[in-house]
Amino acid sequence: MPKYVYEFTEGNKDLKDLLGGKGANLAEMTNLGLPVPPGFTITTEACQHYLEHGEVPDGMNAEIDEKLAALETQMGKRLGQPDNPLLVSVRSGAKFSMPGMMETVLNIGLNDESVHGLAKQSGDERFAWDSYRRLIQMFGKTVQDIPGELFDDAIEAVKHKRGISSDLELRAEDYKELVQTFKDIVLEKTERDFPADPREQMQLAIKAVFDSWNAPRAVLYRRQERIPTDLGTAVNVCSMVFGNMGMDSGTGVAFTRDPASGQQGIYGDYLQNAQGEDVVDGSRNTVPLADMERIDPKSYGELIAIMEKLENHYRDLCDIEFTVERGKLWMLQTRVGKRTAAAAFRIADQLLDQELITLDEAVTRVTGDQLAQLMFPRFDETAPRHRLGRGMNASPGAAVGKAVFDSYTAIKWSRSGEDVILCRRETNPDDLDGMIAASGILTSRGGKTSHAAVVARGMGKTCVCGAEELDIDTKNRRLVAPSGKVIEEGDVISIDGTSGEVFLGEVPVVSSPVVRYFEGEIDPASDQADDLVRAVDRIMHYVDAARRLYVRANADTPEDAQRARRMGAQGIGLCRTEHMFLGDRRSLVERLILADTEKEQHEALAALLPLQREDFVGIFDAMDGLPVTVRLLDPPLHEFLPDVTELSVRVAVAESRGEKHENDLRLLQAVHRLHEQNPMLGLRGVRLGLVVPGLFTMQVRAIAQAAAERIQAGGRPRPEIMIPLVGTVQELEIIRAESLEVLREVGEQYGVELDFPIGTMIELPRAALTAGQIAENAEFFSFGTNDLTQTVWGFSRDDVEASFFSAYLEKGVFGISPFESLDIAGVGRLIKIAVEEGRAARPDIKLGICGEHGGDPASVRFFHSAGLDYVSCSPFRVPVARLEAGRAAARP
Amino acid sequence: MPKYVYEFTEGNKDLKDLLGGKGANLAEMTNLGLPVPPGFTITTEACQHYLEHGEVPDGMNAEIDEKLAALETQMGKRLGQPDNPLLVSVRSGAKFSMPGMMETVLNIGLNDESVHGLAKQSGDERFAWDSYRRLIQMFGKTVQDIPGELFDDAIEAVKHKRGISSDLELRAEDYKELVQTFKDIVLEKTERDFPADPREQMQLAIKAVFDSWNAPRAVLYRRQERIPTDLGTAVNVCSMVFGNMGMDSGTGVAFTRDPASGQQGIYGDYLQNAQGEDVVDGSRNTVPLADMERIDPKSYGELIAIMEKLENHYRDLCDIEFTVERGKLWMLQTRVGKRTAAAAFRIADQLLDQELITLDEAVTRVTGDQLAQLMFPRFDETAPRHRLGRGMNASPGAAVGKAVFDSYTAIKWSRSGEDVILCRRETNPDDLDGMIAASGILTSRGGKTSHAAVVARGMGKTCVCGAEELDIDTKNRRLVAPSGKVIEEGDVISIDGTSGEVFLGEVPVVSSPVVRYFEGEIDPASDQADDLVRAVDRIMHYVDAARRLYVRANADTPEDAQRARRMGAQGIGLCRTEHMFLGDRRSLVERLILADTEKEQHEALAALLPLQREDFVGIFDAMDGLPVTVRLLDPPLHEFLPDVTELSVRVAVAESRGEKHENDLRLLQAVHRLHEQNPMLGLRGVRLGLVVPGLFTMQVRAIAQAAAERIQAGGRPRPEIMIPLVGTVQELEIIRAESLEVLREVGEQYGVELDFPIGTMIELPRAALTAGQIAENAEFFSFGTNDLTQTVWGFSRDDVEASFFSAYLEKGVFGISPFESLDIAGVGRLIKIAVEEGRAARPDIKLGICGEHGGDPASVRFFHSAGLDYVSCSPFRVPVARLEAGRAAARP
Repeated sequence: MPKYVYEFTEGNKDLKDLLGGKGANLAEMTNLGLPVPPGFTITTEACQHYLEHGEVPDGMNAEIDEKLAALETQMGKRLGQPDNPLLVSVRSGAKFSMPGMMETVLNIGLNDESVHGLAKQSGDERFAWDSYRRLIQMFGKTVQDIPGELFDDAIEAVKHKRGISSDLELRAEDYKELVQTFKDIVLEKTERDFPADPREQMQLAIKAVFDSWNAPRAVLYRRQERIPTDLGTAVNVCSMVFGNMGMDSGTGVAFTRDPASGQQGIYGDYLQNAQGEDVVDGSRNTVPLADMERIDPKSYGELIAIMEKLENHYRDLCDIEFTVERGKLWMLQTRVGKRTAAAAFRIADQLLDQELITLDEAVTRVTGDQLAQLMFPRFDETAPRHRLGRGMNASPGAAVGKAVFDSYTAIKWSRSGEDVILCRRETNPDDLDGMIAASGILTSRGGKTSHAAVVARGMGKTCVCGAEELDIDTKNRRLVAPSGKVIEEGDVISIDGTSGEVFLGEVPVVSSPVVRYFEGEIDPASDQADDLVRAVDRIMHYVDAARRLYVRANADTPEDAQRARRMGAQGIGLCRTEHMFLGDRRSLVERLILADTEKEQHEALAALLPLQREDFVGIFDAMDGLPVTVRLLDPPLHEFLPDVTELSVRVAVAESRGEKHENDLRLLQAVHRLHEQNPMLGLRGVRLGLVVPGLFTMQVRAIAQAAAERIQAGGRPRPEIMIPLVGTVQELEIIRAESLEVLREVGEQYGVELDFPIGTMIELPRAALTAGQIAENAEFFSFGTNDLTQTVWGFSRDDVEASFFSAYLEKGVFGISPFESLDIAGVGRLIKIAVEEGRAARPDIKLGICGEHGGDPASVRFFHSAGLDYVSCSPFRVPVARLEAGRAAARP
Repeated sequence: MPKYVYEFTEGNKDLKDLLGGKGANLAEMTNLGLPVPPGFTITTEACQHYLEHGEVPDGMNAEIDEKLAALETQMGKRLGQPDNPLLVSVRSGAKFSMPGMMETVLNIGLNDESVHGLAKQSGDERFAWDSYRRLIQMFGKTVQDIPGELFDDAIEAVKHKRGISSDLELRAEDYKELVQTFKDIVLEKTERDFPADPREQMQLAIKAVFDSWNAPRAVLYRRQERIPTDLGTAVNVCSMVFGNMGMDSGTGVAFTRDPASGQQGIYGDYLQNAQGEDVVDGSRNTVPLADMERIDPKSYGELIAIMEKLENHYRDLCDIEFTVERGKLWMLQTRVGKRTAAAAFRIADQLLDQELITLDEAVTRVTGDQLAQLMFPRFDETAPRHRLGRGMNASPGAAVGKAVFDSYTAIKWSRSGEDVILCRRETNPDDLDGMIAASGILTSRGGKTSHAAVVARGMGKTCVCGAEELDIDTKNRRLVAPSGKVIEEGDVISIDGTSGEVFLGEVPVVSSPVVRYFEGEIDPASDQADDLVRAVDRIMHYVDAARRLYVRANADTPEDAQRARRMGAQGIGLCRTEHMFLGDRRSLVERLILADTEKEQHEALAALLPLQREDFVGIFDAMDGLPVTVRLLDPPLHEFLPDVTELSVRVAVAESRGEKHENDLRLLQAVHRLHEQNPMLGLRGVRLGLVVPGLFTMQVRAIAQAAAERIQAGGRPRPEIMIPLVGTVQELEIIRAESLEVLREVGEQYGVELDFPIGTMIELPRAALTAGQIAENAEFFSFGTNDLTQTVWGFSRDDVEASFFSAYLEKGVFGISPFESLDIAGVGRLIKIAVEEGRAARPDIKLGICGEHGGDPASVRFFHSAGLDYVSCSPFRVPVARLEAGRAAARP
């Protein structure tokens, strides 16, 4: 029979699976000899058994009895003993901290008799009755599902009757009255008396913790966070200590370093004569932890010593809860603490200096997401600023612009060159164009999964959402801050998507020092560099040495290529050629599309050739010596033509006026001919190359000529020719043969050898499923994870982010958008199939990824483990990918 | 060392891989003791070696020498022997017959010396020089790649000079002159003399056959037909016999039964004093084979005996080529003959009667495609008809209508209730709407992979294409037949997509007797039934007993359900509910979409509920006792709204006139809100169910209520609830829980137990890739192969059939559209993954397929082998699926 109950002395911090996070750390502290109130933990296995069978496992209760008896012996009092009662707390504690689960019931063991014992023990009747009412209140709310307002209202009623405003003024009699009122509430709501038997109180609380695993909010949270449903929670039963036994008592939280900056020192808060929930409910003000030295120097000294011990033991920032009961310090909880991005880097750096951790460990203490946060531009902290209010930090960055209150105005003003911030109560798909036009988005309703938040993150656009304290009045086109300050349409505001703050007027934006470091503007050895830059530099050096994955960038211009190189890119993994078909070349592309004969088509292509060649010369120059993967034209041709509805309206309106515009008519015909119901699933990529004669060979010729020119100029161009949207090897076979022929021809003309790899994107499920065949005609694969995500899931990014992602995140269908972080079970499985079968067919095939996931931390780790050779991402994301590639390879 | 050369005595018909089809059958006939001119076959392995290494394998030439010496000994003459030459033919012969490969060079062994020997042997100088010029001509064309016109022109020049019109009038001198001219042509074109050495002639011809394996047309054909590229071809070297040695000689083809009707008897053609190519070039008229009895009774008698022997030996219709040389019959080739659909069934039936084959074998002799052909409506053969011309049978069926010459007219006339035939020189994507509106399509240009053909087949619409003899003059809106008959726009024509014929006026259409049999209108035991119906009936009985796959139908109405049941459907595999949202319910659906509040939405749903319930009551009644899989709403909501461009134009034009239509404006807003760039990849299927509250539960409630009503009425409804477009188990989990709750509720209300399976479509790659998880929440899977094909390949059916399928078929990227026949390597692989992992997670899961592939013969065979439980297809295709399911299970 398994062991279901562990005394704190029997566990340790590595038993989180069995004892939950809280229980494991309580055990660890106990074994370190720290003053932890004695107690025991009921395992997650007991919970699993209960959830599966509807009853607790055989033997569990006997084990509890045994541990309780030991606890009673140790404490010299018994649970519910009238004259000298032992009181305990019952707390949930799963492997992962989980909102929505029942958390705590304190003071178990009190009843009409033992309350007198407690009064005697403590010499404080008021304290005893306060403790009793707290038990009934917490038990009623969390174990018996009685609405909390009923209890709160009763307290308010008493205070009103007494004409007082603070709980501190309540007397023992008041609490006695409240106990009676609370018991009446329980009787009314549950149709039975509040259980007086302390063992029954504990029993019910334990089962309630077990049951809370399946509370709707907990289920939703697990679905959202992809936490397995069968883990269960542990239950911690701990002897009570009291911070509310007078001014020589208190409670507090402490951090071994500043979780905001990472600086060493003493951080935290302390509240005299209080229990934990008094701190949380915010009705009384805490003092900074340092002040405790003055209040209770002995306990403070002990605490400082314990904090040092804990940090050295956990070798990381610790987050601590403690209580002082009549001058005696007790540790109630510890865990490795959360921290900001800057703190993470600084702390890792400091722990390295202290020789507490190795470099391999240090890289596990920082994440790519944190590095990305450090790279966003921010508002100048030294500049004066007037804060209007605060909302949720939905999509990071700093944006400044004129407040506008509808999409129409956003579009109109942005077209005339203004920066605008779109302010809406909440957004819906109608606002999409306005969101695109705006520099930032501000809403007063909706959380981090709201439409505004999801769409903005998808666009990489700064967004503050759910700023409920701001009254956004779209009808009157104005915004009212809690201060009463009114912002009219056209007034400038600044929004901080990283902090969620909203400011009046223009706050100056500064680029991040970390970016300036990556750009080479700050030398980490110089005075300019602060300790954060030096910490980043140290970590980056290490991850560059450790990582197996190469990191390339997606770049389409010489400028982007140069920037990517500065950011540490080892080549270009995706050079899109469609951008080269825009701007003043649009007319040439129109000629190509409207061509009636092959001759006209040929002429249009011939006119594009020298322009394309010049594009490539610049890029090969910027990336001299490094590989540049050029993707042949991918988007449908009609993307280069006007919108069908706009044009139809123009033509129809003109006709209704009796006018006729020949060119518009001709264009409209072409638009109709090329119109597709689902352009994403239409004539694009290699299909274009096979249907429009000469298009791809023109592009290959431009690449070949550019490379030849660079070679003649003494350069070392390394183009790689990439065919997009291949679904079957036959497509590749035909284009590859044509391309090889062009390379041969141009090579002969220039008298140089042009032996460049030809490969394909793997961006359709079929390409992945037939990768073995395709590899026989491809020297490299580049996974196009955006398209692959679209086809594997059957939804297009544009359409679904606007229409149903937010609902899906809310309902927990998604934990995170699969366009943000790679869907490993679906898309990832196809990638693994393609890697395995591609390598089997061609052992020296080069494998990379050039979708936007190339810069997503979790995805990079997957690409490492899937055995790819490189990832490619936007230049700005290159450092993030380098870091995550190093983290993936590190062996702490 | 492998053996590279087999005498005909050494092979047999089962060695097609090694000896090719022709060689294997020559060997088989030789061993049957039939009069085959002696010879030998060089193996495909020799060809493979040559193609891989660029030279023939060691030992092959020595083997040829040895076999040739044996042949010379046997024949008593030597190759090139001046006074008594042995002549041989060299023919290609791959495992699969393959156009584009070199076929034949005759008369190898002739040169300036041996031609005299042949003259002496044959006593016919004209014959000898004719044979010599044939050698140079065929050798020049096929081995040396000299354009054939050069030789043809030279013959014409001589005839012109001599003032004669027929080759028969050419004299020995003329042929001598032609030999010289031909040799000059060879010298000029190849810059060397025509090879006089017979051994060299043979050597070059053999290599040319090998090389022809990679001729561009052969490569294209293999790519189109998915024939492996590395098989290679065999080469047959055969001693010559001559059908052109006088009136006691001749050549012919024969069939052991009528390949058109399947009737027993003697069928074929005979041509006196001729060689095979004279028959082919059509310059002389053959006589029916039966006439040969009169011309050469001895050879005829022998032939008849041999035909009987061959048919009994091959136990099937044989297709034979033979030659009579001076009264001596020689067999040059035999193979199992091609036949029409009707012939296939009749022959199988007759061979069963003759006890030559078993029933398991009989079902391998007929195909689902053939049965489908027999089910198309056809023109009444007894009705008078005036044939205007003929084109290619691009898409089967019989269509009658007024000729129209542009899409605009087609749409206009069809809207006013006219049947029209769209006549175009060729079609392009602009014609799509016209093609949809027309009853049939006729083009004068393009083959079976032309745009018209591909699109029409995709639509299941009758099409005759490439009717080059018809002059389609779209400018003058008329069509001119070769007879000079002019068809003006509006004149009625009839087109037969099965035969490719075009008729003047309305030819009456009759439904196929096979369909009337399936519909129960013809009793196979009665006089009404002809032998074809009886043959079909016999086969169907057998396959229904043999098959493991169940066959269901896709049907959305009680009428369709009844029809499907008559056709043998064992349930409904797909009942689409979107059709139930159309017609006069459109306004309710509009209300649902335009609803501003949840209350309005609820009211709209409540109004739809009783209508939906009635739909289901009718269908459950029609399918009483059999399963009916109901798919919850799948298409995007905006499909129920007007087209965005049309509506925008209407609103803009009205506005330009200063008018304002409130309802149009409101609709336009909704259309814009719901507009999607790629509706196929948007808000549809289960996504709708999760985003529009109450929609799916309304549908489930309607199903549950309908079933409850049927149960109360004593019926046995067997609904199965199917959730479309699931990509992740979380979606299914939520909808499933909601549905179970509704079933429970309704069951309680009606006091009946409603325990119906709830399952999902597997129509997204991700669903297949995570089938193990999904199966835990699904009692059945139904593969939606249309959507799966779309997402696996990343193209939508509508868009690509119009834009690039024809180019893809022409270039051989596709052998057949993956929407017509399942793509086994891509889509099929996902299905296999899902079957395996779904069954592993839930062993009793029911697996079916409801895409259109459920009625495609090749796909049905795949579904059988993949281990599905049932296929579901359109009612009309049910018999085809039954047949193919039986064929797949048969063990001949």
